[in-house]
Amino acid sequence: MHILILGGGGFLGKRLAKELLENEVFTSSEPIDITLVDIGFPPDMLQDARLECIQADLSDEAAMKDILQRPPEVIFHLAAIVSGEAEKNLDLGMKINFHASLQLLELCRKLAIHPRIVFASSCAVFGGDVSKVITDETGPKPRSSYGTQKAMVELLMNDYSRRGIVDARSLRLPTIAVRPGKPNAATSSFISSIIREPLHGKKASYPVPVETAFWIQSPKRIMQNFIHAANLDAALLGADRVINLPGLTVTVKEMIDMLAQITSSEVTKLISYEPDAFLQSIVLTWPAHFTTKRATTLGFVSDASVKEIIQAYIEEEGITYI
Amino acid sequence: MHILILGGGGFLGKRLAKELLENEVFTSSEPIDITLVDIGFPPDMLQDARLECIQADLSDEAAMKDILQRPPEVIFHLAAIVSGEAEKNLDLGMKINFHASLQLLELCRKLAIHPRIVFASSCAVFGGDVSKVITDETGPKPRSSYGTQKAMVELLMNDYSRRGIVDARSLRLPTIAVRPGKPNAATSSFISSIIREPLHGKKASYPVPVETAFWIQSPKRIMQNFIHAANLDAALLGADRVINLPGLTVTVKEMIDMLAQITSSEVTKLISYEPDAFLQSIVLTWPAHFTTKRATTLGFVSDASVKEIIQAYIEEEGITYI
Repeated sequence: MHILILGGGGFLGKRLAKELLENEVFTSSEPIDITLVDIGFPPDMLQDARLECIQADLSDEAAMKDILQRPPEVIFHLAAIVSGEAEKNLDLGMKINFHASLQLLELCRKLAIHPRIVFASSCAVFGGDVSKVITDETGPKPRSSYGTQKAMVELLMNDYSRRGIVDARSLRLPTIAVRPGKPNAATSSFISSIIREPLHGKKASYPVPVETAFWIQSPKRIMQNFIHAANLDAALLGADRVINLPGLTVTVKEMIDMLAQITSSEVTKLISYEPDAFLQSIVLTWPAHFTTKRATTLGFVSDASVKEIIQAYIEEEGITYI
Repeated sequence: MHILILGGGGFLGKRLAKELLENEVFTSSEPIDITLVDIGFPPDMLQDARLECIQADLSDEAAMKDILQRPPEVIFHLAAIVSGEAEKNLDLGMKINFHASLQLLELCRKLAIHPRIVFASSCAVFGGDVSKVITDETGPKPRSSYGTQKAMVELLMNDYSRRGIVDARSLRLPTIAVRPGKPNAATSSFISSIIREPLHGKKASYPVPVETAFWIQSPKRIMQNFIHAANLDAALLGADRVINLPGLTVTVKEMIDMLAQITSSEVTKLISYEPDAFLQSIVLTWPAHFTTKRATTLGFVSDASVKEIIQAYIEEEGITYI
């Protein structure tokens, strides 16, 4: 079973590959082999005979055509220009987040391969009145170019699935916390930083009022949901291939308080409020309250508590603190 | 005041130009002049010193750039590959309905003109469970490539407006009835045909069960709504530039019965049921029940009754019948 991970050099892609190789979690009993595609790979990429890393740009049609010559049964499409960068650079965001995704679908069409595609969309497709509860019926009203591009690709994934060109599932990911590694250009980057950085003895700041709520999910649950999506019977999804993933509603304050409870108030002293108008203009349009009946019925999972999320991060990273 | 009508050779574009020239309906007191753009114009195009017809393809970048050199204050973007054709020819639908619209926005960006754009979207962005009532919050779930392409352009219109590149308003048009002229490749074409053709002594058929309900609006009200949209203060719209137009819910049977009442059962004898699987696969996914609070609050209008719609058509066309 051949699996392609686009954006395979990013933290989600790397972790997904590891998970798949370790657990062979596909309902198909065939042995798996994985091709990771990204513009670059970190030096600590895992080595495995079943794993191949190809350095290529998703927007490079010839390279992508070449890669798809050996048809994957499943494509995890995780490649993206993150929200902050896509907002600052409309051309780059459109090129990678939109046009390269359309090109992927068109290549599947031309090559007449019919892969299952798990597309990493985002709850950033929602925006506007953040007091409202988002349901499975609520329409995307993005307040960012990133959210706009993700919402357009969801529409394409649905239409190309309806036409039988691919068999896609678009997961609207909550904000991922706690993301390992370094802060990045995602406008949501701070939501991980305020937990991760202090645990490593470093300072961190949040740019929005401490009462601001977010809809979050841990990397561990995201992985489970990606794999679940890839295994899900198309008949259960019907014509609507877009799924709002379940998550947890949590405020910045609740995250910091829980970190203090798990560690100490010495650790959380490293966190400060630094208002940022650009980040606020995007982040404060994200709704934090959802009912995700469809996802739950379909078997997608969420974290039990913020405590569990922070403790899982501490464990996974092998962090020790006083 | 320079006005550009894309798709100006179609029946909506022609009628809009006529309406604008006759009534000078803009809040701006400047005299108006209109440029119509289309791939072709009918021989009966109206002649007026204030009117210019340019034969060009919306997807022709050089031609469109040339046209935009004299910046329009208002663009009515009515050009489209209709639903039936877009379903049968994915490439053509994507090219005109999606890519050419994106190109228009990109040209506005490059030329740094900031026109008000009235974009003719469609209630065909909705689909699925037709028993549900569509509200202002309901998300587009198109069940056709046409609806998909329209929904993607709405997202672009919103994002390019949010970024200050243009000032767009996307109107989701109900099915237009009664459309004058000949049957066309729109999957909704029969909804007009069953009224229009018998009034001209010709046969007509409907491809769906007679109890099927539709959400309709007359050309007269569509015109009023286009012009209202162009005059509307951007501040009243805020970040969400997409409007579900008000309409009337009516079944095929109700339309035929009303035609019989206005004319005679001799006329409606020309109408028959001819099931068509392709048309049903699209048309039966369109919801017919809406609440359009936002549109009504913003001053958009709908028809009073099916009777009014049919009588208006008879009057406009100067039809006499026994």
